[in-house]
Amino acid sequence: MIHPWKTLARRVLLRRPPWFEIGEEDVRLPDGRIVENFTWISTRDFAIVVPVTDDDRTILIRSYKHGVRAISRSFPAGYLEANEEPLAAAKRELREEAGWDADDWVPLGRFVVDGNYGSGAMHAYLATGARKVAEPESGDLEEMELECVPWGDAVASLRRGEVQQLASAAALGLACLARAAMSERTARSG
Amino acid sequence: MIHPWKTLARRVLLRRPPWFEIGEEDVRLPDGRIVENFTWISTRDFAIVVPVTDDDRTILIRSYKHGVRAISRSFPAGYLEANEEPLAAAKRELREEAGWDADDWVPLGRFVVDGNYGSGAMHAYLATGARKVAEPESGDLEEMELECVPWGDAVASLRRGEVQQLASAAALGLACLARAAMSERTARSG
Repeated sequence: MIHPWKTLARRVLLRRPPWFEIGEEDVRLPDGRIVENFTWISTRDFAIVVPVTDDDRTILIRSYKHGVRAISRSFPAGYLEANEEPLAAAKRELREEAGWDADDWVPLGRFVVDGNYGSGAMHAYLATGARKVAEPESGDLEEMELECVPWGDAVASLRRGEVQQLASAAALGLACLARAAMSERTARSG
Repeated sequence: MIHPWKTLARRVLLRRPPWFEIGEEDVRLPDGRIVENFTWISTRDFAIVVPVTDDDRTILIRSYKHGVRAISRSFPAGYLEANEEPLAAAKRELREEAGWDADDWVPLGRFVVDGNYGSGAMHAYLATGARKVAEPESGDLEEMELECVPWGDAVASLRRGEVQQLASAAALGLACLARAAMSERTARSG
């Protein structure tokens, strides 16, 4: 039997609205031990999209990420705006960063970025029937280069270590699993 | 052409050694714009292991994660100790949390948890020929329940949303891709 911990006190140490808030808690474990200053980091939820075209291509965005100090390949993604639903954010980011829209949106799940610190959650989507509908206008600070690549090349890029951010690597892995399950269903019903 | 940003000044706002450090930078973008107070969050690197037995089972750990406020299923994982190699940490965590050892260790990659904030990196491994060799002794604060489940059940658990932490979800997705590639190679050479 697994028991939750009890929060005895909670303090904010640092706030940078709307970006993040950091603090600590004193907690009581199920065995009665008290742990003081257990840190929490609250960052914003974000949505990420793995788009697939009808001819089995996807988009990778090459951009410099200052946190990584490197140029990385990633999928369209961004923070949820205030009161924005995850799916709406995913659609908006695909439109803004890639200029793409899609026919079908398959949820790949909601995942907490860090189980210890409790940072924000990632909401991942597979977007099928994806296609370009406009020019991208991200409004982000980063310079971006869009690469429209065959699905297998994106997976190979992940294997070569060119997808360096956990969110994009996870989204691609989850999308592969979802696509495999979709193929199985089609094969069974066909 | 994608250009790196230039750091003009760097300040530490909050330190909790050895756990994390938070600060901000003033940076100059390639187009000349200056961005002040661009936050960085430096957490510790961690290793995570997806073990597979010879009869195609894996281990999931059920534990309460206070950051998530939920009981979650995850793979053996933990922070690197000072000067510890990622692979050594992965082996140690599999031994401590599960009491397992393994014959072969396949690196699944190094991924930065957050490309914007630059939090620590995840080092993921697939460990094949895994087997129990001792009783677990994690030393962690969390109560843990070990589940030794067929591989397909772990993937189904991920699809049902029971693997709520991004690191474990990513590691399982990456492990599926690696296993598929290994099967293909075996099939080609067989």
